[in-house]
Amino acid sequence: MNLTEKQLKAEYIYKGKIINMRRDEALLPNGRTALREVVEHPGGVCVAALTDNNEVLFVKQFRYPYFEEILEIPAGKRDRANEDPLECGKRELKEETGAQAERYIPLGALYPSPGYCGEIIWMFAATGLSYGEQNPDEDEFLTVEKIPLEKAVEMILSGEIKDAKTQAAVLKLKLLKDNGKI
Amino acid sequence: MNLTEKQLKAEYIYKGKIINMRRDEALLPNGRTALREVVEHPGGVCVAALTDNNEVLFVKQFRYPYFEEILEIPAGKRDRANEDPLECGKRELKEETGAQAERYIPLGALYPSPGYCGEIIWMFAATGLSYGEQNPDEDEFLTVEKIPLEKAVEMILSGEIKDAKTQAAVLKLKLLKDNGKI
Repeated sequence: MNLTEKQLKAEYIYKGKIINMRRDEALLPNGRTALREVVEHPGGVCVAALTDNNEVLFVKQFRYPYFEEILEIPAGKRDRANEDPLECGKRELKEETGAQAERYIPLGALYPSPGYCGEIIWMFAATGLSYGEQNPDEDEFLTVEKIPLEKAVEMILSGEIKDAKTQAAVLKLKLLKDNGKI
Repeated sequence: MNLTEKQLKAEYIYKGKIINMRRDEALLPNGRTALREVVEHPGGVCVAALTDNNEVLFVKQFRYPYFEEILEIPAGKRDRANEDPLECGKRELKEETGAQAERYIPLGALYPSPGYCGEIIWMFAATGLSYGEQNPDEDEFLTVEKIPLEKAVEMILSGEIKDAKTQAAVLKLKLLKDNGKI
């Protein structure tokens, strides 16, 4: 079955600071056309950093779209469209938590909400941590927490940790660690 | 540390079919103000449905923002704000795969990309499947695949399955099943 759609028209509704928005017309496999709303994003990176005591580094941040403080692993968007994901991950880990890592293990990519959003989040695990000074962006407010890996997994299974990249990356870290691969 | 932000101004840039977009001004904890770009979405549901042979039901769909066919568990957005997530999950599972389930187990909520997006995806596992006719939306093109749970977990760990809700829900299903809770 051919599932492919073609772009017939593209119209930018908004070009902004973090995201752009398009309103496209797509040609469907059955020859009909459909509206496609698309959010563009430069892509982001997250890092599940594991201490030598099997704790995971978290940051607590106020997330405006939900009006809620939530726990997430350190993460950020790429500074420019083609920034190398690993370099971006190292920078964000250092800025948000002060930590640097000896080893980075790729955990694959995450598509947050593929129906309308084109963002890609590259995920990494990191081990062999050393600590320096935090250096968050000027208008970024966050607190750092260390949570034992098994406790973090419980908090994900119970629904207490809601962030998508955090759920995926920490559960991958847990399974790879259980398999002796990290 | 007080992390809370306040909404000072809200301006709709776009009100659309699936999403709306706002451009807000927020008051930060340090008294400064910042632009907040917010994508609004009515919320969605996904279902990790497990057959009696320990296979997971997947749908393959073309996802326009990536111009790519990807594997996801059955899912959809709420028909109206406030539609009960479980009712929505039952409907989407039936429409996309033809399956109905005897038991639904809540797997918590997922925040796809909390920096700019307010979507909530409610996740469920489902067991005790029986099969009827598929009934996808008129302009929805998808193929159904059954993948053994252990193989699906491998495909997530290797990076082959990229969708966020699918990664989170299938890994939760795996861990809860290993713990005898499903």
